[in-house]
Amino acid sequence: MSPETASGALRDVEAFVFDVFGTTVDWYGNIVRTLAEYGKGTDEDWDAFAKEWRKGYFKHARSVAESGHGNTNMDVVHRQILDAMLESTRWKHLANIWDDKKRHELVLAWHRSDGWPDVSRGLYALKKKKMIIALSNGNMRFLVDIAKHADLPWDAVLSVDLFGTCKPNSKVYQGALRYLEMAPEKCAMVAAHMWDLEAAAKHGMKTVYVPRPTDDGDVRDKVKTKAEGGQVDALVESFEALAQLV
Amino acid sequence: MSPETASGALRDVEAFVFDVFGTTVDWYGNIVRTLAEYGKGTDEDWDAFAKEWRKGYFKHARSVAESGHGNTNMDVVHRQILDAMLESTRWKHLANIWDDKKRHELVLAWHRSDGWPDVSRGLYALKKKKMIIALSNGNMRFLVDIAKHADLPWDAVLSVDLFGTCKPNSKVYQGALRYLEMAPEKCAMVAAHMWDLEAAAKHGMKTVYVPRPTDDGDVRDKVKTKAEGGQVDALVESFEALAQLV
Repeated sequence: MSPETASGALRDVEAFVFDVFGTTVDWYGNIVRTLAEYGKGTDEDWDAFAKEWRKGYFKHARSVAESGHGNTNMDVVHRQILDAMLESTRWKHLANIWDDKKRHELVLAWHRSDGWPDVSRGLYALKKKKMIIALSNGNMRFLVDIAKHADLPWDAVLSVDLFGTCKPNSKVYQGALRYLEMAPEKCAMVAAHMWDLEAAAKHGMKTVYVPRPTDDGDVRDKVKTKAEGGQVDALVESFEALAQLV
Repeated sequence: MSPETASGALRDVEAFVFDVFGTTVDWYGNIVRTLAEYGKGTDEDWDAFAKEWRKGYFKHARSVAESGHGNTNMDVVHRQILDAMLESTRWKHLANIWDDKKRHELVLAWHRSDGWPDVSRGLYALKKKKMIIALSNGNMRFLVDIAKHADLPWDAVLSVDLFGTCKPNSKVYQGALRYLEMAPEKCAMVAAHMWDLEAAAKHGMKTVYVPRPTDDGDVRDKVKTKAEGGQVDALVESFEALAQLV
């Protein structure tokens, strides 16, 4: 897609709403490092552990989105998944190593996720021109902690605990549009997950896909812009590229 | 109050939540200028007009806080009060000058309220050390617009449309503490209004009074810190002074 085409597709957008985990921050890197540190002396596949933990969260969020209700506090959910994993055949030998305090610390490690290298600079540049809003399946405190850690200068944080359900439930996108008092076509969802963009598009929002190495492995390479016969309004390699487009 | 005393009172505070209108931004200056511009050729007491408009908003917010429900969209409320004023004996001669479009523009002028001179620098300094959160009777979009206009780098915006009622209703303070997942004593309310601080204190929050020339004229000079036998935990002349304390 040429920059001119992408720029045209986003011409009337006044607010960009961003997914956080995966899209804005690298949930994987810090967690794998922290797991390895906490599991020193044991020889484990921390890559597999991190991915299973994350997968558990996705499963929970999808279930909450489908039923319309459920726990929207990511810390509580991360802890429940961790505890369940430590009762499973594969990981139960770690249960004795990680007591309540250590498990609590591991859960809080997610709050120190780093931004992808392009993110902070890209958001500062974009903030000068447009509204930049977090719209995440995280809870408010979690998102504020991450924003401070990764230097994400959001104009506002719309967390799912405001809506009582998770993306991709309609209430989240509709709620964001209501609080921003904005017509859907003036608002673009930015995500590294096609399921998130598909849901946003259903409500008339514009869509910006940002491929990230940790997410959407099964569809990432097939995503195309509408100009190329695909699904999304724009596809950018980085938040800095997005800031340059608008 | 010595800086040491104030600093001690706020020692354990992790999040500062700020009132916006009056405390953070000068609602008065820009509105009086805009009214004068829109009323060019007429000789009016724009000071009185602005104060009556603002008083109408306060009356509405108090009524919503007392009953627990009502309109929390400041633009809609500002428009209703403006329309009612333009039907009153004192101002009805202006009703023909200001058509629907002009009234709409006058309502939007509130979104361009300037920060007090100390505010932006003070918030940037404080943000490096603590969470800084807007907790205002404004609606989300209104607060985001003002934050961009006045360069207010909030970590998050908690607007009353999240709670369906206005300050000083308990739901607003309790809601803020819930979203921040914070014990009340770790949280300090910063305001130029004693009624706001009294309500925050009832929920166990710390209190910081910032006297402003446009607000609290009847009590402003009598406010004292607890260390001086008064009501508030700290009293500061500016946000910059607050940032230096913590």
